[in-house]
Amino acid sequence: MKTLSAPNTKHFISLDPFSKEELLYLIQKGLAFKQANEWPQAYQHVFVANLFFENSTRTHKSFEIAERKMGMNVIPFEASTSSVQKGETLYDTVLTLSAIGADICVIRHYEEAFYKELLDSPSIQTHIINAGDGSGEHPSQSLLDIMTIYEEFGSFEGLHIAIVGDLRHSRVAKSNMKILHRLGARLYFSGPKEWFDDRFNDYGQYVDMDELVTFVDVMMMLRVQHERHENQEQFSKTQYHQQYGLTLIREQQMKDQAIILHPAPVNRDVELASDLVEAPRSRIVTQMSNGVFARMAILDTVMHYKEEA
Amino acid sequence: MKTLSAPNTKHFISLDPFSKEELLYLIQKGLAFKQANEWPQAYQHVFVANLFFENSTRTHKSFEIAERKMGMNVIPFEASTSSVQKGETLYDTVLTLSAIGADICVIRHYEEAFYKELLDSPSIQTHIINAGDGSGEHPSQSLLDIMTIYEEFGSFEGLHIAIVGDLRHSRVAKSNMKILHRLGARLYFSGPKEWFDDRFNDYGQYVDMDELVTFVDVMMMLRVQHERHENQEQFSKTQYHQQYGLTLIREQQMKDQAIILHPAPVNRDVELASDLVEAPRSRIVTQMSNGVFARMAILDTVMHYKEEA
Amino acid sequence: MKTLSAPNTKHFISLDPFSKEELLYLIQKGLAFKQANEWPQAYQHVFVANLFFENSTRTHKSFEIAERKMGMNVIPFEASTSSVQKGETLYDTVLTLSAIGADICVIRHYEEAFYKELLDSPSIQTHIINAGDGSGEHPSQSLLDIMTIYEEFGSFEGLHIAIVGDLRHSRVAKSNMKILHRLGARLYFSGPKEWFDDRFNDYGQYVDMDELVTFVDVMMMLRVQHERHENQEQFSKTQYHQQYGLTLIREQQMKDQAIILHPAPVNRDVELASDLVEAPRSRIVTQMSNGVFARMAILDTVMHYKEEA
Repeated sequence: MKTLSAPNTKHFISLDPFSKEELLYLIQKGLAFKQANEWPQAYQHVFVANLFFENSTRTHKSFEIAERKMGMNVIPFEASTSSVQKGETLYDTVLTLSAIGADICVIRHYEEAFYKELLDSPSIQTHIINAGDGSGEHPSQSLLDIMTIYEEFGSFEGLHIAIVGDLRHSRVAKSNMKILHRLGARLYFSGPKEWFDDRFNDYGQYVDMDELVTFVDVMMMLRVQHERHENQEQFSKTQYHQQYGLTLIREQQMKDQAIILHPAPVNRDVELASDLVEAPRSRIVTQMSNGVFARMAILDTVMHYKEEA
Repeated sequence: MKTLSAPNTKHFISLDPFSKEELLYLIQKGLAFKQANEWPQAYQHVFVANLFFENSTRTHKSFEIAERKMGMNVIPFEASTSSVQKGETLYDTVLTLSAIGADICVIRHYEEAFYKELLDSPSIQTHIINAGDGSGEHPSQSLLDIMTIYEEFGSFEGLHIAIVGDLRHSRVAKSNMKILHRLGARLYFSGPKEWFDDRFNDYGQYVDMDELVTFVDVMMMLRVQHERHENQEQFSKTQYHQQYGLTLIREQQMKDQAIILHPAPVNRDVELASDLVEAPRSRIVTQMSNGVFARMAILDTVMHYKEEA
Repeated sequence: MKTLSAPNTKHFISLDPFSKEELLYLIQKGLAFKQANEWPQAYQHVFVANLFFENSTRTHKSFEIAERKMGMNVIPFEASTSSVQKGETLYDTVLTLSAIGADICVIRHYEEAFYKELLDSPSIQTHIINAGDGSGEHPSQSLLDIMTIYEEFGSFEGLHIAIVGDLRHSRVAKSNMKILHRLGARLYFSGPKEWFDDRFNDYGQYVDMDELVTFVDVMMMLRVQHERHENQEQFSKTQYHQQYGLTLIREQQMKDQAIILHPAPVNRDVELASDLVEAPRSRIVTQMSNGVFARMAILDTVMHYKEEA
């Protein structure tokens, strides 16, 4: 393996700009935080605000814990009781938080690329971390996903990885397919064909679920995002589970060492059988645990940013 | 007094399983925290989440303060902006919090015995503290109640204690009657007879309010829980106050050393006359203060849990 | 300049009772906190609760940051999930927070003079800080405003200061006109004449906007408070901007050293042209930054209160 290099980035918007070596650095950094019993205490004068304009438990709370493990001060922010209710824009809200001393703003927002106007502002000083932008990207989830795969297999080269389900609406799918492809994995897709489109063809091929389960190393299931579907579902939950889900029967066809991932929250008995959530080959609970350490790596990275001379 | 023994318990669900000696230990522990100026700093790597699915000021905030006085890290949790809004269950929410590093979950939930499925899970590692389960129990309130009585009288033996009001809907009534009975107090009940049922006969007798006030040592008033009554109230607030409430006139019939308790929030001029809330014999403000120290005793107890070999 | 004297006050309700010397002390204290790199660590056993019954970002969050920079413990409080939802009054809520250990309550409430009953209570021990009372006062905003002016000009004597806009509904206008007048500034008012009334005549005169811009040193714009107007607006946003707003054209008439203030959130292109928010003469971002340090001065002041013998 080549020498890993720390990415020098003020903001953390996407994994896309990072080289393979930088991605491996971030993974190693996260795993190092996981193994450490002592956490950095260098950040006790750092203020961070988490602006979540969409409901979240995992991402929101694991950022909160990551920040506290770094020794940072967390400024609570609730969109529902902020001046956003008086019509204040995201730009003016972040400008305010920057002015009153927030060093980092972690933002989840329903608008794709919400961060664009924030990065260009001469008055906004804070580091921006993208915790999910509409149907855009979700880089901290991608990082914890690849960290969990790396922790299991020690490498990406030649791994067969399936991404299955709500491909069109999933931030995770879009982030992950580009990154896993760059890291050397072979990708496969499954799920309803109407949610599969040409963009995915560049990264991997569509395979029917019954065949897919027999040969992949990683079965990455996506959440059916009921809240992003405008029309009635085209199929019932039972139908979805039978056609595209990881049923108990399909799981038995998986290779011995193959693992199951899911970003959660799981729609139990839809994407996968409820009993598989805590099954031996499931890494869903591990993903959640790793999420804290992945986010510590992200926070640490932006805080080490050095402006070029 | 026999030697007190610290209860060894991973979770804190009810006072019911504790012996008299264990209950007295918890009381003494709480009173010791009250007298101390310095608080334990051993818990600064402990993460605790407070999951309140019902509105609360006293219980929620006194747990928050207790946790901070113990030096713990509090992870904010708001049901209204969590993935519960995407349909995530309590089980999956606690599984998540456990996975991302919560050592303790303090939970108030509208469902009776919500904790059952949590205690059996092999994947959920966190200590569970019951901060009120539907119409079930409310053990931290019970502990602060008995702590306040003990602080006043130094013993329970032979004390005459009245529990008055909304017996049927009250978590406090059910927790307290069993515990106070075990500790040696003599119990009496009053309030609307339709809210009194056979379960109470095992612990004490129903006495009319006008007689009751003349001889009890402790007058424990319950809150009329408008939010748990499905039908229209059978009586107006004035009628309730006149028939079952602690009026200014009735209060004058009380013994010199008798005290008034109420878990609060008080419906002023319903359960008791507004002026009695801060009257000399009221211990309602003391109850609130003691609530913080009772909860410190609870947090300390579960953190001292040792798995048996 | 005379020797400055620290105000001795248990509560912080209004700037009105303070002498000129006390006001200058508060300003100097705030500016000293701004220059310091190290903050007081003497307050780590102090508990503070922020009770905001109206939406807020700036005031709420800058109090939060100020408290944490003082090393205080912040107890989160959300009106929407508190027992206020069960009908509990502000008095009983503050009584509870006082009983469970809050040393300071910072309160914003929609009712004018909400604090009156709190100050008289024998049972409520906490310091009360007024973070805005209905259409009453907003003293922490006033302090940050005068601190920003003082930082710029080093004195108030002879300064020409305009307060422009929604005079009738503005807490800021009422607080500021009295204080700036006391500090020796000359005041002018502008905006819709129907929002100007006799009370303002004691402090300064009404001047048409086109004339006003040419000679003032400080142009203090007020927010049009859509949420406090009961009827339909009498003018469109464009009309308001043209008649009473600080347009790009008017701004060019301002003196070289003149500055623009606005308490924010700004209704962009209503009170002032959007491009002026971050213009060179704007001190709107500085106001936000100074708000944290002004609030540190307030917190420090009430904590130094000594009861007279």
